[in-house]
Formats: sequence, C-alpha cells, structure tokens
Amino acid sequence: MARWEPDSRGRLVQAALVLYAERGFENTTVAEIAARAGLTERTFFRHFADKREVLFFGAAALEEFLVSAVETAPESASPIEAVTSALEAAGPLFEERRDSSRQRQQVIDANTELRERELIKLASLASALADALRRRGVADPAATLTAEAGIAVFRVAFARWVSDSDSRGLPEHIRESLGALQTVTAGR
Amino acid sequence: MARWEPDSRGRLVQAALVLYAERGFENTTVAEIAARAGLTERTFFRHFADKREVLFFGAAALEEFLVSAVETAPESASPIEAVTSALEAAGPLFEERRDSSRQRQQVIDANTELRERELIKLASLASALADALRRRGVADPAATLTAEAGIAVFRVAFARWVSDSDSRGLPEHIRESLGALQTVTAGR
Repeated sequence: MARWEPDSRGRLVQAALVLYAERGFENTTVAEIAARAGLTERTFFRHFADKREVLFFGAAALEEFLVSAVETAPESASPIEAVTSALEAAGPLFEERRDSSRQRQQVIDANTELRERELIKLASLASALADALRRRGVADPAATLTAEAGIAVFRVAFARWVSDSDSRGLPEHIRESLGALQTVTAGR
Repeated sequence: MARWEPDSRGRLVQAALVLYAERGFENTTVAEIAARAGLTERTFFRHFADKREVLFFGAAALEEFLVSAVETAPESASPIEAVTSALEAAGPLFEERRDSSRQRQQVIDANTELRERELIKLASLASALADALRRRGVADPAATLTAEAGIAVFRVAFARWVSDSDSRGLPEHIRESLGALQTVTAGR
C-alpha cells in the first residue's frame, strides 16, 4: 500500500538542494536525495526525470505564465511594457522562495553543465516571449529584441534579488534593471 | 615528406560546410570531410579538435578582437558606443564570407546541439565584453546589461545580414538593430 506522502515534491527539492550544496551536484545520487527526503527512489522518479530536472522543473510553468501574461496585456501596452509587466507579475512565484532560489543559483553557478542548461532554458523562454509578442502584432526585429531585452533585465534583476540582503522584492529589482537598460541603450 | 597544402584549413571548412548541408552534421564523418578536401584525417586534426570545431573555431578570434576594441575605444565613448563600435569594426571579419556564414548558420539552425553550442559561445562573448567594460570603469549592472544588449543587437543584425538579399553590410545592420533596440526599450 502506498504511503501518504505530504508534499513529497517539495521535500525532494529541499533534500536535493542541501545535498548539491554539501557535496556538489555531480557527487549526489538520486538514491541519496530520496533517502534524505525520507522517500523512495520510485517516488523521486514519479516527480522528476533525473537529478538535473529538480533544478529546472519550474521553467515550464514560468514560461506558460509569462507567455499568457504577455498575450493578455492591455492592447495599449508597448512591447517592452507587456514583457516587463509580465516579469513583474511573476514576482510572487518566487517571492516566498528567495532562500531556495539562492541555493539553486549557487548550485547552478558552480557547475558548467548546469549553467549551460540554464542558458538554454532562458533562450527558449526568450523565444517563447518573442512568439507571444508576434501574436500581439509586434513585427521583427522588435519582437526578438524586446524579448531578449526582457530576459537580460530579468537575469540581472534575479541575480541581484537573490544576492541582496535588503528586503526589496523581485518586481522592484526588475523595474530598476529596466531603468538601467534604458539608460545604457540610450547612451549613443 | 609532408605535402604542401595551400589553405588546407579553408579547404576543410568549405568541404565540411558542403557535407553538413548535403547529409546533415550528424551524418558526416571527419574522414569524409578530409577526403572531400583532398587531405588526410591527420591534416584535419592538425587544424580542428573535432567536426564541431570547424563551425566554432572563429569564436576565439572574434572575442579577442571585440574585447580589444572595447578596451581601446576612446575614453569619451559611452558603454553602448564602445560595444557597438567594436561590433561594427568586426564587420570586415565577416564581409567576404557572407556565403559561408549563411551556410554555417543553416547547419547550426538545423541541429539542437549546435544551436546550444552557439548560445554558449555567445554567452561567453557577452561575459568577456562585460569584463572589458568593467576594466573601462563601467559599474554593474550597466556593464552586464550593455554587453547583453550588444550581443542581442549582433545576433539580430547577423541573422538579417546572412538572410537578406540586398547588399547592405553587417555594420549597417548593426546600426539598424541598435536603433530598433533603442526604440523598443524606450517604449515605457
């Protein structure tokens, strides 16, 4: 009979982040993650395809959220407004998880393969946002450039948010990064 | 005794691009590339570590050129000016190779692993440009955002340059893409 497993996914994520930090991503096995979470390997594989997926399973939900927010932004919103409003609106998806977001980022930054995987996920997100802008009638190259600018703003904002010790939220960092991008691009 | 091999590297690149286009990157062997170029496998491996390297060996020279151009830009140049002037100055590195640049891009676009490798090379280039800006005294996040903006401009300009049938040069496409980025980022 299957045991009742309250929030087994969350427990697996927490156990994985602790182990990746302690002994490195490459030296951690799925069996160890499951044991640490008090669960079986079989339960792990019900939630994740592999140990890398623990770090990236949120990307699909984030992409879906952002694409939908861009598509449903007011008609009057400019492309960059549609994208940055979507990013700001995604803030609450992260807000309660600043500590685990920081742990996750440290694990990724320490491993070339994971950094590459993250780059690829972000490029895929930029591409999905550009498609969403095209469905709003934004032409190229504006659609591509707006999406790339949005992702650059998001990466910088996210890095500052996880590393800053102050209490400013992710949306505030996003607005600040957008302001910085506007200043640097206008500089010619 | 070693045969004299005039431009063996160029012949290997041309042979590889033709074969990758004809039968796909994954279905082409180093032996076939060497044979098509009228050279030996040993000669191939004197120039390239593997068949993927044929597509990416230029990245190091491009990075070196751009980093040096950013570092030596006039003190009065704004960060975005330093980066886009460097990109424009790199135009002649590509200008004579529009056809092979187009062939190369088609091979990369058709293969997930190669697209990922290109993303990683461009991210490494952005990171090197941000470092060069920091050495000019540009603070963060401006250094990171300027470098990312420059790479986004370059990617869009490059894609338009290889696919456009008109005779506009790469520097002109770079200026046009920068103008488009300035327009979209100001739109809020």
